[in-house]
Amino acid sequence: MAPNIPKEQWAQVIESDGVMKRKMIPVATPGPQDVLVHITYTGVCHTDLHALNNDWPLPRKTPLVGGHEGAGIVVAKGDLVANGQGVDIGDMVGIQWLNSTCKHCSFCMQAQEMLCPDAQLSGYTVDGTFQQYAVANAAHVAKFPKGTQLDKAAPILCAGLTVYTGLKVSETRPGQFIAIVGAGGGLGSLAIQYAKAMGMHVIAIDGGSEKKESCMNLGADTYVDYMTSKDLVADVRAASPEGLGPHGVLLLAPMEKPFQQATGYVRSHGTVVCIGLPAGAKVSMPVFDTVVRMVQVKGSYVGNRQDMAEALDFFTRGLVKAPIKVVGMSEIDKVFGLMRENKVVGRYVLDTSR
Amino acid sequence: MAPNIPKEQWAQVIESDGVMKRKMIPVATPGPQDVLVHITYTGVCHTDLHALNNDWPLPRKTPLVGGHEGAGIVVAKGDLVANGQGVDIGDMVGIQWLNSTCKHCSFCMQAQEMLCPDAQLSGYTVDGTFQQYAVANAAHVAKFPKGTQLDKAAPILCAGLTVYTGLKVSETRPGQFIAIVGAGGGLGSLAIQYAKAMGMHVIAIDGGSEKKESCMNLGADTYVDYMTSKDLVADVRAASPEGLGPHGVLLLAPMEKPFQQATGYVRSHGTVVCIGLPAGAKVSMPVFDTVVRMVQVKGSYVGNRQDMAEALDFFTRGLVKAPIKVVGMSEIDKVFGLMRENKVVGRYVLDTSR
Amino acid sequence: MAPNIPKEQWAQVIESDGVMKRKMIPVATPGPQDVLVHITYTGVCHTDLHALNNDWPLPRKTPLVGGHEGAGIVVAKGDLVANGQGVDIGDMVGIQWLNSTCKHCSFCMQAQEMLCPDAQLSGYTVDGTFQQYAVANAAHVAKFPKGTQLDKAAPILCAGLTVYTGLKVSETRPGQFIAIVGAGGGLGSLAIQYAKAMGMHVIAIDGGSEKKESCMNLGADTYVDYMTSKDLVADVRAASPEGLGPHGVLLLAPMEKPFQQATGYVRSHGTVVCIGLPAGAKVSMPVFDTVVRMVQVKGSYVGNRQDMAEALDFFTRGLVKAPIKVVGMSEIDKVFGLMRENKVVGRYVLDTSR
Amino acid sequence: MAPNIPKEQWAQVIESDGVMKRKMIPVATPGPQDVLVHITYTGVCHTDLHALNNDWPLPRKTPLVGGHEGAGIVVAKGDLVANGQGVDIGDMVGIQWLNSTCKHCSFCMQAQEMLCPDAQLSGYTVDGTFQQYAVANAAHVAKFPKGTQLDKAAPILCAGLTVYTGLKVSETRPGQFIAIVGAGGGLGSLAIQYAKAMGMHVIAIDGGSEKKESCMNLGADTYVDYMTSKDLVADVRAASPEGLGPHGVLLLAPMEKPFQQATGYVRSHGTVVCIGLPAGAKVSMPVFDTVVRMVQVKGSYVGNRQDMAEALDFFTRGLVKAPIKVVGMSEIDKVFGLMRENKVVGRYVLDTSR
Repeated sequence: MAPNIPKEQWAQVIESDGVMKRKMIPVATPGPQDVLVHITYTGVCHTDLHALNNDWPLPRKTPLVGGHEGAGIVVAKGDLVANGQGVDIGDMVGIQWLNSTCKHCSFCMQAQEMLCPDAQLSGYTVDGTFQQYAVANAAHVAKFPKGTQLDKAAPILCAGLTVYTGLKVSETRPGQFIAIVGAGGGLGSLAIQYAKAMGMHVIAIDGGSEKKESCMNLGADTYVDYMTSKDLVADVRAASPEGLGPHGVLLLAPMEKPFQQATGYVRSHGTVVCIGLPAGAKVSMPVFDTVVRMVQVKGSYVGNRQDMAEALDFFTRGLVKAPIKVVGMSEIDKVFGLMRENKVVGRYVLDTSR
Repeated sequence: MAPNIPKEQWAQVIESDGVMKRKMIPVATPGPQDVLVHITYTGVCHTDLHALNNDWPLPRKTPLVGGHEGAGIVVAKGDLVANGQGVDIGDMVGIQWLNSTCKHCSFCMQAQEMLCPDAQLSGYTVDGTFQQYAVANAAHVAKFPKGTQLDKAAPILCAGLTVYTGLKVSETRPGQFIAIVGAGGGLGSLAIQYAKAMGMHVIAIDGGSEKKESCMNLGADTYVDYMTSKDLVADVRAASPEGLGPHGVLLLAPMEKPFQQATGYVRSHGTVVCIGLPAGAKVSMPVFDTVVRMVQVKGSYVGNRQDMAEALDFFTRGLVKAPIKVVGMSEIDKVFGLMRENKVVGRYVLDTSR
Repeated sequence: MAPNIPKEQWAQVIESDGVMKRKMIPVATPGPQDVLVHITYTGVCHTDLHALNNDWPLPRKTPLVGGHEGAGIVVAKGDLVANGQGVDIGDMVGIQWLNSTCKHCSFCMQAQEMLCPDAQLSGYTVDGTFQQYAVANAAHVAKFPKGTQLDKAAPILCAGLTVYTGLKVSETRPGQFIAIVGAGGGLGSLAIQYAKAMGMHVIAIDGGSEKKESCMNLGADTYVDYMTSKDLVADVRAASPEGLGPHGVLLLAPMEKPFQQATGYVRSHGTVVCIGLPAGAKVSMPVFDTVVRMVQVKGSYVGNRQDMAEALDFFTRGLVKAPIKVVGMSEIDKVFGLMRENKVVGRYVLDTSR
Repeated sequence: MAPNIPKEQWAQVIESDGVMKRKMIPVATPGPQDVLVHITYTGVCHTDLHALNNDWPLPRKTPLVGGHEGAGIVVAKGDLVANGQGVDIGDMVGIQWLNSTCKHCSFCMQAQEMLCPDAQLSGYTVDGTFQQYAVANAAHVAKFPKGTQLDKAAPILCAGLTVYTGLKVSETRPGQFIAIVGAGGGLGSLAIQYAKAMGMHVIAIDGGSEKKESCMNLGADTYVDYMTSKDLVADVRAASPEGLGPHGVLLLAPMEKPFQQATGYVRSHGTVVCIGLPAGAKVSMPVFDTVVRMVQVKGSYVGNRQDMAEALDFFTRGLVKAPIKVVGMSEIDKVFGLMRENKVVGRYVLDTSR
C-alpha cells in the first residue's frame, strides 16, 4: 500500500436529521473487494439535501457521510481486486450512487443493478464522498482516463449519468425530437448537450429569458417558456414536426405540474421519461388518451455501469461540459442554503482539501 | 359481379344519441379500393354502446350503422382491388374497427395505422357491420381461411385483436408472468388463452368464485379475487417469482381503481398496459416509485393489420376460443340492455339473417 | 391539370442488353393512385449500370427507361390521390427505387415494403427517371420541403437512403464505433456524414491518401488504408475502444474481400451490415468464431418510406451533403463509361433539360 | 463446514491429448467467492470430447478434469459468499460451462458474460464436473429448487441452456415458425420442446423415419427429411406460411452443409442462428440474396445467468424433458466411444458414485 494514507481525515457528518457537522473521523479500511479512494472533488446533488433532511420514503443510515459524485485517486485496494481492471493504485476513478450491488440477483444478472434489492448507496446507506477518503466496491467505481480534470468530471458521476440514461430510456433516435423539461437547470444543461451529441433535436422547456439564453447557447433548437406561454401543450407541439409532438420527453423539473402535462404534448406512440423527484408528486394522465394515442410513461433512475462508461466517454471526448463552481468542502452549508432557496445555477463541486 | 346482391337490406341505424332503429336501408356500393361484404355474423362490443350513447371524446357520424366485428363473404369489389390478395369474391373476410387508413402518413408508414389521423372507424365514423352488407377498404379486411366458422371468428376481430396486441405491447416473454385484470370478462377470457398460447404464466385477477372457475379452466395459473383479498398488491406479488411481482400487467377492467393499483404490484422494470376505457378515468402513480423502480405504463389500442393476421392465426389453430352466444340481429337492444346492467357473460354475436 | 404537359419528351431508353438510346417517347399518363413528376434532376447509381447490362439475378423490363434518383415537380395526379398528402400539383418530390408496392402483403403490413413480392422498381421493372416526365405511386414518392435544391437532393433518394438505413440496421448507438468499408466512395461519403450526425465514431476504411483526406474532411475519426495496411484486422481493432473492434461495420465496397474480413474485426456481439453488391460474391465466415463471439451479419437493402423521410430530414437540415457533378442527361454514356472504369468520384446528377 | 468432505475423490483426468484416466485426486478448496459442490450427476456433451481431443482453436488446461453439466449439493462455501443467495450449504445447484467471469469488463457489465475475456470454463480452462467434488464461482452456479431430480436436470445446464438461448437469439415470436436443423439429436429434442413451450411452430429437419417419429412425438408440427427430400429448400419453404419460409432457423447439426443452405429457405428479414460447431466449417451465403432479402445470420453460444434461470424454470415446470441414460462415471470411455461413432441417442448422464 504505497501511498501515504492518514488515519484521520475531514468529513461532513450527518448526525441526525437536518444536522451535519464538519469533523475529523477515521479513514475506513477497504474490504477484500473494495477500493479506498482519495476523493479530491465531489459534486453536490439535490439527493444530498434529501439525505440530510431524511425526507425520502427510503431509509438511510445515521450517522452518515453524504455525497455520491466523488472523483479521486485509488490509494488502496482489497486482496480480491485483480490487477489491470482499471482500479489499480494511482488510477483516477469516481464513486457513484451505486456503491455496490449483489451481482447475483435477477436484476444484477440482467445488468439492471440499479434495481438490486441489496444495492448499497453512497452517501445514503453507506458513507459517501463528503470526506477525503471513501470506500466503494471495485466493480462499481467509474474509471477515468489519465489526465481527466476531476473537478469537471465529478458531476457526470450522477447528473450526467442520470440524464444520459434517461435519453436512452426515451428510445428517441438520432434525428427525432426530445423535449427537455427543466432544460435550464443543472441536469437540463447536461441533457441538452447529451441529446445534441446523440443527434436529437431539442425542445428546451423552462422559465425566463436567462434560461432561454443558456439553453440556446448549449444547442437547443427551440425554447418554450412556461412562464409566458399561454398554451404550453400547443406551443410544444408547434415546435415539433407536423405539430404532432416530440417523440420523447425528459421530465427533470422538481415540480409536479409538468408530470401531468407531458402526456398531452408527447407524440402518439411517444415516450415520457420521469426523472425528477418532486416530493409527494404523482404522474397522472387520462386513460382514454393514453390508450388511443398509445403513449408510454417510464421511470428512469440512475444508469448501470455500462451507461456510466458511455456517459463518461461523451465527457472525455469534450462533447458535454458541466458548468461547475468549485468551493471548499467546508462551505457545503452555504451550498445547501442556495439549494433550499432554489438559487443554484450550474453544479457546485466541493474541493475536499479545504 | 356474380353474387345476387339485393338493393335493400336490414340494418340497425342509430338516428340520434341513444336511439337505434331496425330498418331497411340501401346496400352501399364499394369504392374503387373497397370490398362489399355480406356480413353473416357480427359481434357486439362495449364500444358499440359508447357509439350509441355518443359519450366518448371522439366525434361520430349520424345517422350511423354501428358494429365492427363483422364476419362474412366478399360479394363485390372495386376496380382497383387486385385479384389474388385474399379478398376475391367468395372469400371469407372480417370487417374490423379500422375500416381504412391513409397509408401515407408517418404512422401508416411505420405500421402504426391505428394512429393514422385520417383513419375511418367501422361503426363509428363510417357505417359498420350491424347490417347485412357492409363496405371496407380491401387492404383492411381480415382474411379467414376457407372453412372458418364465422360466428366463432367474429369476436377475434376486435376483442381478440385487442388483447393479443396488448400482450405484445407488454413485452412479456414466454416463461414470464402476466397479471390480467378483469380476467373473467369477455376480453379477459381471450387474454388468458392468448397468454398461455404465448408461453406466459397467468395471474388472473377478478371478483367472485364463478369467475375464478372460469379463469382456471381457461388455463390461468393463479387467481386473485379482488373482492375478498385483504391486500391485493401483496397477493398479486405473492403469486409471482420471488414475490417481486409479475413482469407485465394487462388492465382490461372497466373500473378506475386497478389503474391506480397496478404500478404497485408490477415488477420493477415491468410494464403495465392500459386497454380498458373506464369513463373519465385517470392512470396515476407516485413519481418516486415510478422512477426508482423504473416502471413503465403504456396505452394499447387495437392492433395493426399484421397483429390481426397473427391474432387470427392463433384462433385458426384452435388455440383460443371466444365463448359466444348467438342471437338474431333484431335482438340487439336486449344485448345492449344486458351490457348496461353489466350482465354479459362471454361475447354476444348477432346473426344478421334474423 | 394546370401545368403544360407535353405529349412527347426526351428519354434514355434501354432497347436491349447493353444498348441505350436517347430518343423522344410519349409522356405516360398516371394511373388513379399515381403522380406524374416532371423530373428536373436525376442521379446515376451503379444499379443503373446493372440494369443496362442486365447482369443481376433479377429480371427487368425491356425496353426500359432506367433511373431511380429522380427529383422534380408534380404536374399531374390520379383521381384517387387525396389533396394535402404532400403530393399536390406543384409540390417538389422524388421518385425512388420502390415505385410502388402492394400495401397488403405481410411485408407491407409490417413496414418492410422493400421485401414486397409485388414491388415495382423504378428504372428496372417499370420506367424510371432518365426521362423528363416519370410516373410513380403517390404513396411512394419522397416529399421535399419548398425550396429544396433538387440537384443536390437527388442522390439522397437512393445513395443517402441506403446508407442511412444501413446505419440503423447496424444497431450502432450514438457514442459507439462504426467501421465504414468503402468510405471514400459515393455511398461512403454520405455514410460518414450520416454516422457523425447520428453521434457515432467513424473508422473509415478505403485505399489511398486522396480518399483519406476526403474521409477525414467529412468527419471520420480514423482512417485505415487497406492498400498499405499490413494487417487490416489488427489495424481496425486498434482503432476501436480497448482494441475489441467496432460495434458495427458497413460494407459498401464493390469487392468480395471485405465481406470475408469484416467478421474478423467486428466486436464480439457486433453487427456486420452487407450493402454493396459485388457481382457473384459470397459472405463467408468461420462457424466457430461466429458462434463463440456471437457475431451477427445482416443484409440491408434500400429503406422503407419512413427511412426515406428521415434520411431526407438530415439532408434538409444541412447535416449531409452529396458531392455532386451535374451534366446533361444526354451525357449519360460518358458517366457510365467512367463508372465502368471505376473513375467516378462523388455522384453524377443528370440535368434532364439538356 | 458441516458436511463430511473427504480429502480425496474419484475423478476422470485428461493427462494429455486423447488420454483420460480414472483416478483418486485431492478435493479442491473453494476460494473466498466460490462454492464446493458435491456432484452427484453430470451430463456428457460433445464439447467434452473436443476437450479430450484438444482439437478446438481455444487453448485448454492440462491435466484437466472435464465436464460442465454437473448437478449436486453445496458442501462448502468461501468466506465472501453471502447467506441467502441460493447457494447455502445443502442447496441443490448446477455447475455450468461458465465457471466464473470477471464481472467488470464491458461484456459482463452488459450481461453478456459469455463474451468475458477472462471467463473460466468448467472442464476446459479449470477443472470441471467429471469428479465427485467440484468448485465454481458462487455467482455462476445454477440454482435448483428443492426436490429437483438432479440426473434429469443435468443436461439442462448446457444443452438446455444453449438451445433456449438460441431460440431467444432467433427473435422468433410466439405464433411464428422456427426450423430446427438436427431436430432429432440431443440438442434438437430439447429445442423442439422449448420452442413449443414458447408458442412457436416447429419445422423439424433431420434424417430418417426414427428421428421423424421422435420429433413428431415431442411436438414438431412438420418434419422434413434431408435424406429423402429432393429439394430441401423448397420443402422447408412449403412447410411455412405462404411458402415464404420460416421466421427463424436454429442450426444444431454437426455438419457444414446446413450452414450453407439455411439462408436459402429462411424467410426474408428472418434470422438464422448458428449453434452447432462442425469442425472447420464455414457459414457462407450469396451477398446479393443476403442484401435484397435482408436476411440475418447470428452466432449463439451458451446463455448468460438469466438465460440459465429461465431455461431451468421451463424444466422445473415440466415443460421440457431431456431423454437421459444414466451410467456410472467409470463408464465414460464407453460414452465417448458411442459419441465418436455418432451413435448417441438422447443424453448420457454420469452417476459419480460408481
